[in-house]
Amino acid sequence: MNIYVKEIEIDTHGNTDIIDVTGKVSDVLKETEVETGICLIFTPSSTSGLTTIEYEPGCLQDLRRVFERIAPSGENYAHNARWGDGNGHSHIRAAILGASVTIPVQNHQLVLGMWQQIILVDFDVRPRRRRLQVQILGN
Amino acid sequence: MNIYVKEIEIDTHGNTDIIDVTGKVSDVLKETEVETGICLIFTPSSTSGLTTIEYEPGCLQDLRRVFERIAPSGENYAHNARWGDGNGHSHIRAAILGASVTIPVQNHQLVLGMWQQIILVDFDVRPRRRRLQVQILGN
Amino acid sequence: MNIYVKEIEIDTHGNTDIIDVTGKVSDVLKETEVETGICLIFTPSSTSGLTTIEYEPGCLQDLRRVFERIAPSGENYAHNARWGDGNGHSHIRAAILGASVTIPVQNHQLVLGMWQQIILVDFDVRPRRRRLQVQILGN
Repeated sequence: MNIYVKEIEIDTHGNTDIIDVTGKVSDVLKETEVETGICLIFTPSSTSGLTTIEYEPGCLQDLRRVFERIAPSGENYAHNARWGDGNGHSHIRAAILGASVTIPVQNHQLVLGMWQQIILVDFDVRPRRRRLQVQILGN
Repeated sequence: MNIYVKEIEIDTHGNTDIIDVTGKVSDVLKETEVETGICLIFTPSSTSGLTTIEYEPGCLQDLRRVFERIAPSGENYAHNARWGDGNGHSHIRAAILGASVTIPVQNHQLVLGMWQQIILVDFDVRPRRRRLQVQILGN
Repeated sequence: MNIYVKEIEIDTHGNTDIIDVTGKVSDVLKETEVETGICLIFTPSSTSGLTTIEYEPGCLQDLRRVFERIAPSGENYAHNARWGDGNGHSHIRAAILGASVTIPVQNHQLVLGMWQQIILVDFDVRPRRRRLQVQILGN
């Protein structure tokens, strides 16, 4: 079994910006010889997260609205009181969503549903350049 | 290290139907020679998710109730306004829960707590036949 | 590719106690020869979960508050009505957070953000001794 590692860069607008990273991850897979295995995508950050969703504007708007209810941006956060950086809600949303997704690889392709894309959600309160770690293990 | 891949089929009733898939995943593991490794279970779908829970009727009822509060089925969703399929809440719940779980394998068995089962939660609004991807990596 | 397995013990106070386990997981990695791979940390339990966060008191307080809103400890849970153990909210919080995290390994180190730590969140209603399964796959 082999391991292939690559970092991909994503520029975001922050503020629960949602970016489809499926194409960039697929490009990494194409550079490898892996037919069967797993693909881990990880964001080394505490204010962004990863998941899968149907990437269409309605779902993205709905996801933003629900995260605004789970951890509203306008509430008082103890993190903000200590550090004054105003992204307390970003940390909480990121911790709940999770920092990684793992996607199966078969026939040299990501196994995803027809309407399922891999997304980075950047909860921070300003534009960020994110570096995602992609690790592919397999034969 | 070896990789073993199998698809398992699960029929669901939809509407946050919760199915214990531990037995079927264990059966896949038994077909392999893997003593030590990891087991990835992935749903290639944007309206269902996977996690672990104590599979008893009380917990299942509580989980359904809490998801109904996180993303209520009766709210207006931008996804529904665009596509008219009425499963906007299903997409949001699935994105938050996540499309996969990864379970350690040791002594040719899944490492799970005594009261911990692997569940598929189907958030879609109609019965579905789900195909879960099980990938076991190990020695 | 090799696999390294170790169990680590964590004593908790329960009641959404949040423990930074990054150091103990790093110690396991140091015992191995793995330069590049993945590290799975799994809690074989249905009342605790794992994620990453900036481990500072403000974020921890905020995370506890948001979980208290998602699944309030004072509500009626069907699990409690059946079993009388009072930890219905613990099960629901754990199922939503998830029982594992997977962290990339590169240069014999965990790939984490500068302000990102791995945490165990113990949602149970009493102190517990938790045994986390750490599995490192790589070369």
